Amino acid sequence: MSVVSPAPYYSSYPSVTNFLNSGLYRWDGDANTTFAGDTCIELVCSPNNPDGGIRKAVTKSKSGKTIHDFAYYWPQYTPITEAADHDIMLFTVSKCTGHAGTRLGWALVKDMEVAQKMTKFIELNTIGVSKDSQLRAAKILKVVCDGYELSPTSKVNLLFHFAQRKMAERWSRLRAVVATSGIFSLPDKLSSYCMFAKEVVSANPPFAWLRCHKDGVEDFESFLRERKIITRGGSKFGVDQRVVRISMLDTDEAFNVFIGRITSLK
Amino acid sequence: MSVVSPAPYYSSYPSVTNFLNSGLYRWDGDANTTFAGDTCIELVCSPNNPDGGIRKAVTKSKSGKTIHDFAYYWPQYTPITEAADHDIMLFTVSKCTGHAGTRLGWALVKDMEVAQKMTKFIELNTIGVSKDSQLRAAKILKVVCDGYELSPTSKVNLLFHFAQRKMAERWSRLRAVVATSGIFSLPDKLSSYCMFAKEVVSANPPFAWLRCHKDGVEDFESFLRERKIITRGGSKFGVDQRVVRISMLDTDEAFNVFIGRITSLK
Repeated sequence: MSVVSPAPYYSSYPSVTNFLNSGLYRWDGDANTTFAGDTCIELVCSPNNPDGGIRKAVTKSKSGKTIHDFAYYWPQYTPITEAADHDIMLFTVSKCTGHAGTRLGWALVKDMEVAQKMTKFIELNTIGVSKDSQLRAAKILKVVCDGYELSPTSKVNLLFHFAQRKMAERWSRLRAVVATSGIFSLPDKLSSYCMFAKEVVSANPPFAWLRCHKDGVEDFESFLRERKIITRGGSKFGVDQRVVRISMLDTDEAFNVFIGRITSLK
Repeated sequence: MSVVSPAPYYSSYPSVTNFLNSGLYRWDGDANTTFAGDTCIELVCSPNNPDGGIRKAVTKSKSGKTIHDFAYYWPQYTPITEAADHDIMLFTVSKCTGHAGTRLGWALVKDMEVAQKMTKFIELNTIGVSKDSQLRAAKILKVVCDGYELSPTSKVNLLFHFAQRKMAERWSRLRAVVATSGIFSLPDKLSSYCMFAKEVVSANPPFAWLRCHKDGVEDFESFLRERKIITRGGSKFGVDQRVVRISMLDTDEAFNVFIGRITSLK
């Protein structure tokens, strides 16, 4: 069965699909250009890694499946515009609370048979993440939830509000630099009513998808690496090399150094 | 490439090898009876799950590999007869300290290229076990080591000595029941000089590989299940159904109930 996703797609989708050379599925590239037949699996990452775009499934496979990767569908990154209700939805504490090292995710799955296959896969692959991780994640999520449920009047320093403010501040600084650079551009700023914040908020994606318009720069990742800025180039995400993905989630110290360096580029 | 192991082999080897229908490798059964060609991978589990046997590789593949599964090569289960020095050796805290839920193992690998492939596999498959698990396991192993290094004169209640005593006591009780049963048998008791204990000790495998000689009992697992003893039957390990694997590692309470029930069988 073909596995596809519209480019730019998360750079690990091809390698994690193909590394064991499975006879059950194979990576088939950009969902917008690949003829995927009637039985493809489409990976829908929204907000999208790498470009922050809000995605809907693009394939119309009747017997296929769509898998919604909601790693970034949290209020600090994007307005929560709906109670998502897709067939297969993946979540993780990684980008929700920042505990990527806990390696814990979960899925909401409508079809019992699919859910049982997923459970069997986990059993055979790893028997699941450690009890240590499960206890840690349960505690963290409880603290986050309790914060909102028990302190409804002073949310300003609770997790999502704190993180949303932090992300908005970083994006504001980066957009200001890009606007005056004359050689860079970013995706347009998106705003919507957020059901969680109960107001209109801007999206602040976890990654900046930065494009370079300077003449002669064909490999933007190398151009930046020579100037001591480490990014991941567009070709790893199935598109051209004049665009790169930049993490917006590093420490304050690293982000400040990045802003200083990008500001100096002409 | 064929993956093989001499029967009886660990019941999960076939399913974990085949579940993704990889084009890189496939399960090929009993290493003693299967012609595995020149490029097989042999899994050598010693002491062996399920029967506790001390194993050496049986295939003579020149371009193949042997993988030594040393999950049970710890002093509470078996005399430590050598500083193992094979090409690829797998270990885990699971049966060493009992922390199976921490999901942490490690490998000692001589060939740099093989080690790099294993590291890449882990990166693509799971990115590794959680930091939570790594910290827990490091702490546990340090406490175990410190016990032996800092208290060299009073080892009796340190981990391996405590667990060896517990296992020996359980095996003594089970062997007594089996000897008087008239219908059951166990593998012979093995003893060797243990480099860790610095004396001759008996092996006390984590599983009892119990055979039934009673007329009319063709499916020993079902026979026991009807008598409220849950085991895993020989067919899951690639051999006949008149033998079963019984865990020797359950709680004292469960083990006492088991001894009571097995004693009553005629």
